[in-house]
Amino acid sequence: MSHPYRPRPVSGFPELLPEVRRVEQAYLDKIRRTFERHGFASIETPSVEELDVLLAKGETDKEIYVLERLQADEATAKDARLGLHYDLTVPFARYVAQHFNALTFPFKRYQMQRVWRGERPQEGRFREFQQCDVDVIGVDNLALSFDADIPAVAMEAIASLGVGDVRLHVSNRKILDGYLAALGIEDRVAAIRWLDKRDKIGDRAVIDGLVASGAATQAAQRAVALAAIPVGDAAWADKARALLPAPNAIFDTGVEELSTVLDTLAALGVANVAADLSLARGFDYYTGSVYEGRFIDYPGFGSVVAGGRYDDLAGSFINKKLPGVGISLGFSRLFAKLHAEGRLPIGASTPTQVLVALPSDERRMLALATAKQLRDRNLNVETYHAPQKLARQLTYAEKKGIPYVWFPPFEDGQKHEVKDMAAKTQNEADPATWVPS
Amino acid sequence: MSHPYRPRPVSGFPELLPEVRRVEQAYLDKIRRTFERHGFASIETPSVEELDVLLAKGETDKEIYVLERLQADEATAKDARLGLHYDLTVPFARYVAQHFNALTFPFKRYQMQRVWRGERPQEGRFREFQQCDVDVIGVDNLALSFDADIPAVAMEAIASLGVGDVRLHVSNRKILDGYLAALGIEDRVAAIRWLDKRDKIGDRAVIDGLVASGAATQAAQRAVALAAIPVGDAAWADKARALLPAPNAIFDTGVEELSTVLDTLAALGVANVAADLSLARGFDYYTGSVYEGRFIDYPGFGSVVAGGRYDDLAGSFINKKLPGVGISLGFSRLFAKLHAEGRLPIGASTPTQVLVALPSDERRMLALATAKQLRDRNLNVETYHAPQKLARQLTYAEKKGIPYVWFPPFEDGQKHEVKDMAAKTQNEADPATWVPS
Repeated sequence: MSHPYRPRPVSGFPELLPEVRRVEQAYLDKIRRTFERHGFASIETPSVEELDVLLAKGETDKEIYVLERLQADEATAKDARLGLHYDLTVPFARYVAQHFNALTFPFKRYQMQRVWRGERPQEGRFREFQQCDVDVIGVDNLALSFDADIPAVAMEAIASLGVGDVRLHVSNRKILDGYLAALGIEDRVAAIRWLDKRDKIGDRAVIDGLVASGAATQAAQRAVALAAIPVGDAAWADKARALLPAPNAIFDTGVEELSTVLDTLAALGVANVAADLSLARGFDYYTGSVYEGRFIDYPGFGSVVAGGRYDDLAGSFINKKLPGVGISLGFSRLFAKLHAEGRLPIGASTPTQVLVALPSDERRMLALATAKQLRDRNLNVETYHAPQKLARQLTYAEKKGIPYVWFPPFEDGQKHEVKDMAAKTQNEADPATWVPS
Repeated sequence: MSHPYRPRPVSGFPELLPEVRRVEQAYLDKIRRTFERHGFASIETPSVEELDVLLAKGETDKEIYVLERLQADEATAKDARLGLHYDLTVPFARYVAQHFNALTFPFKRYQMQRVWRGERPQEGRFREFQQCDVDVIGVDNLALSFDADIPAVAMEAIASLGVGDVRLHVSNRKILDGYLAALGIEDRVAAIRWLDKRDKIGDRAVIDGLVASGAATQAAQRAVALAAIPVGDAAWADKARALLPAPNAIFDTGVEELSTVLDTLAALGVANVAADLSLARGFDYYTGSVYEGRFIDYPGFGSVVAGGRYDDLAGSFINKKLPGVGISLGFSRLFAKLHAEGRLPIGASTPTQVLVALPSDERRMLALATAKQLRDRNLNVETYHAPQKLARQLTYAEKKGIPYVWFPPFEDGQKHEVKDMAAKTQNEADPATWVPS
């Protein structure tokens, strides 16, 4: 055709070349392996939920993509409206409510799926991206030990990628809640939202915001003092108590829980954990532990993982109290950043370990049999497709990053040989016993 | 809440309980492993394409889901319209065209992703399902040997699942095309579509259809004769030649190619392969080899895998000739059928191999350390969360199908013990060396 339609990338929907996809797959495999080693079960939910489910918690600031059939008809008009899920928490809540009787609690699940948000493309955000979530859900109550298990798993998953050390910032929403209550601040949801912005807008603007949302000026000034306790300060509990203007039971519970979680994380051998009382996590539904993992050498990156404890997962869907704790790894954002900075270990564009060269059409069956023999030993093997010049066959291997080229006997009486493409060495080899070095 | 929204399954969007999902994951892993062992590289494309791309080949009878932002605004109105992909071939074609200069050819890729079709829910079809595609693409030409490689990989992938023997039906579109030309039938695209329906509507209706689309009555009657050659008849070539009313070069090429493909499949050790000249595959774009894999003991199932050779993958997108051959495994349909018939090996609902019992709160650190020791040896391990009665801890393991329960010493001086839940035996064990039996 002379005037083909020129395809172009769709903004916000990235895709990867095969050699980059290989790294992505390896990373996702490692994350999955960690989740499973800790006994979390995989679930997947449909990409689509009824719009009523996506909006069950009330308005969301997430931009939802709604589906319309291209060839809509009367029958369609009667269907429930469907939307692509914008996170994995709402679908998980719906899943647990719907399958409640078929699940065993505490239910430990991981979920690694794409999610969609109809962000404006010009803002350069992803509109389709991969999240890796791990949560545990109980009925009526859930042991505090899970508040240490969950971030431990997440930290191990990140460590398995070898992309940099992450510090786990931990706090407990009850500390902040009790502290604000003791200061006489009534609209604590609004206050926590303001405090969550402290990193971005600074103390001055936070104090103004607190005052604007009804706090007394002095209380607003003291509210930010808790966040000034240095990250990882061993005396965080004493310093927090010293700031407290009046006894508060919720505050005390928060301090106790956070201490226990930190102790358990230490016992689990998790390194780089720091109490961080400035951590607010601006989501209304967190009620206890809150976490954020940040690169130690790359503070500008923001959070690699984030999560916390919530009182009730699925209250919009079922008359059960289902407390849980979970954490989410924003995989696509992490991967894209590492990619953009050239920090990915990009290698071959194929899983092939051995390319079996094709000496001639007459010896094709021998080449195929050799490939099969190697493949049966669980090696990834392909046979070159045409009896072309050896230089061309070697170029194919080189371009794809295939580490070994195998030469079956080109004439009767010769032996098999294998060439190590990196070492540029070639040696006799037996397809029944050879292993890559 | 007293009146929660009751979630219900959305028709056409199935989801699985954890114990079923485990089987699905194991199956998908096996398919992936087979594809990689044969040197196919993974790619994934966005779930979404511009509508122009999805419709680039002209009208499609696939029902496309179009995305609309819930909170549409003026900026949105200017964006290109986006739709969810309905297969993996169109996105692959767009991918190859877009990244042409970054790929090495022949390009061997596999792609395992969800696709969406806005089918009417009342027809009980899936509206979201998983496909597993494997294709190889060349530039200008592509060796015939790939026409055997591709179905060999697909057959090995199915065999790895152990869900029943599949017979591979193979034909070559050129045989039918040359035969119909020799019969003087002009609208061969229409004729092949009619012949493709033979299984469903019978010879009589096919002949009527051929006549209605312009064929002479006698030619129409002879057209179905090729399809009457028995499946797997060793003399298929002679019998086909005997039916040919006049010499035809395209027919001859088809016979030669099919013979070579069958010989190569035999050399590759693929069992259960049969020439089947009734195989039409009603897609216009197939130009050579065509395949369909069907269960031997379950003919009503239809095709498990299907595919063929096409002359040009991406002509709508790039001024290059990109011939290819590929096959697609409709995973969701296969899995759902096996599930509905109780033929899946469903077991535990968790990957956990060992549950470490918690003797008491005092011994929690010992239990956690034991779990870590086992986990570091790459076992999947969880620790019970509360020092409850042992009966309750054992019930948890039993309900989730966890095969071993580990008892760290409940008192100083005791040894570790492990209980095999199936064998109902309990023995001393060392966490540094124990392996599941």
